[in-house]
Amino acid sequence: MAVILITGGARSGKSTRAEARARSFAGQPVYVATAEALDGEMQERIARHRARRGADWIEREVPLDLVPALLSTEGGGARLVDCLTLWLSNLMHAARDWERDVRELADTLPRLNSPVVLVTNEVGLGIVPDNALARSFRDAAGIMNQIIAGAADEVEFVVAGLPLKLK
Amino acid sequence: MAVILITGGARSGKSTRAEARARSFAGQPVYVATAEALDGEMQERIARHRARRGADWIEREVPLDLVPALLSTEGGGARLVDCLTLWLSNLMHAARDWERDVRELADTLPRLNSPVVLVTNEVGLGIVPDNALARSFRDAAGIMNQIIAGAADEVEFVVAGLPLKLK
Amino acid sequence: MAVILITGGARSGKSTRAEARARSFAGQPVYVATAEALDGEMQERIARHRARRGADWIEREVPLDLVPALLSTEGGGARLVDCLTLWLSNLMHAARDWERDVRELADTLPRLNSPVVLVTNEVGLGIVPDNALARSFRDAAGIMNQIIAGAADEVEFVVAGLPLKLK
Repeated sequence: MAVILITGGARSGKSTRAEARARSFAGQPVYVATAEALDGEMQERIARHRARRGADWIEREVPLDLVPALLSTEGGGARLVDCLTLWLSNLMHAARDWERDVRELADTLPRLNSPVVLVTNEVGLGIVPDNALARSFRDAAGIMNQIIAGAADEVEFVVAGLPLKLK
Repeated sequence: MAVILITGGARSGKSTRAEARARSFAGQPVYVATAEALDGEMQERIARHRARRGADWIEREVPLDLVPALLSTEGGGARLVDCLTLWLSNLMHAARDWERDVRELADTLPRLNSPVVLVTNEVGLGIVPDNALARSFRDAAGIMNQIIAGAADEVEFVVAGLPLKLK
Repeated sequence: MAVILITGGARSGKSTRAEARARSFAGQPVYVATAEALDGEMQERIARHRARRGADWIEREVPLDLVPALLSTEGGGARLVDCLTLWLSNLMHAARDWERDVRELADTLPRLNSPVVLVTNEVGLGIVPDNALARSFRDAAGIMNQIIAGAADEVEFVVAGLPLKLK
């Protein structure tokens, strides 16, 4: 089954692109949100994404355990994971061995019975952050993106709403 | 008439590329600067851009009202707007409804009687900024870039002085 | 001789890509590290890069004087310079005229007797940094990348481990 990774910067149109790719597959799509609605800024963003997608998606909140969620057989269509960067942040906050989780996900992706579209962020193209935690996070995000891109069949880099084919 | 959007990072060669594209059209080009020379750093940058362009451009400072400036019929050549990111910042400082202004610009672009080349910045590919104002700005910049890219005939992403065709 | 520039964000897979390009040329490759092992974070990164490369490289630490190091005739294979961004930072800390050094490097590259692969970073795609020093650095890095890309035969932009051809 197709494994598609969509990467890009903040508000680059990644989610819209990923939704279009997920809808292009037959069956009811499953929206796997890694965000938890912990604050107002996030609640507002989740509500806006939901309004755009429409009501015909199965929705699941999966902050940590992506692999079992992707292996579940509910819904006949593509799974859309939005987004891996937040998932990584959740793993780090939960003091999980994030690299092990990322590699487990990469190993699982080619074995899924449904197409999957994963959204991630590029966060390493600015100036080196002052604080060590932000540096660790951007390093981890870069490593994760390389690992998942290696396991994907297609990778797109979205800039200003326009996809650039990387793989 | 051609609508060309040139995007990229700081000092990526966007302005030089945009000037070359603007000069490729017949007639005297019009340089529409959204910057105001408010501090020394900005004055120096404006002077350097002017020295590079040469004296054969009509120059206009338009911090806010881009649409009437682009509709004006002076100069027979292309309009070069440098840059939209600063324009957005000016709109936000002036407490304007920036999204309305951006959509009005997008609606106007296909109706112009002159070719137009617009420069913008990618600001969303670094780590999430600590302060909420910076986060709002990068969100707005990403949304603006998607809207204007949607209205453009051509979009280029400049990296290290080299254009990558997005559209 | 081939001059190849590899650019990208933090942990985008630039070094791995550059090593593969350098190994594709005949002869023993020379690794020109611009990093000095001044702190633990850097020592750890250097050790990790060395473990990945393997033992068959000649290794040189060259924080400042890249041109004579590249003109040296030791080793029969490609030179890999990792990375220019750190070199620029070293030049600025040493209060050197960095733009002169960068232009001298660009002038030297086409005259080398060995292929050379240079790694650099994109640092200008985030929000404008608060402090003036960081702004100066990202401006300098962008200017350097344009100058070196102009002198290169090939330029690749690496995202999530995947190269995008710019030139």
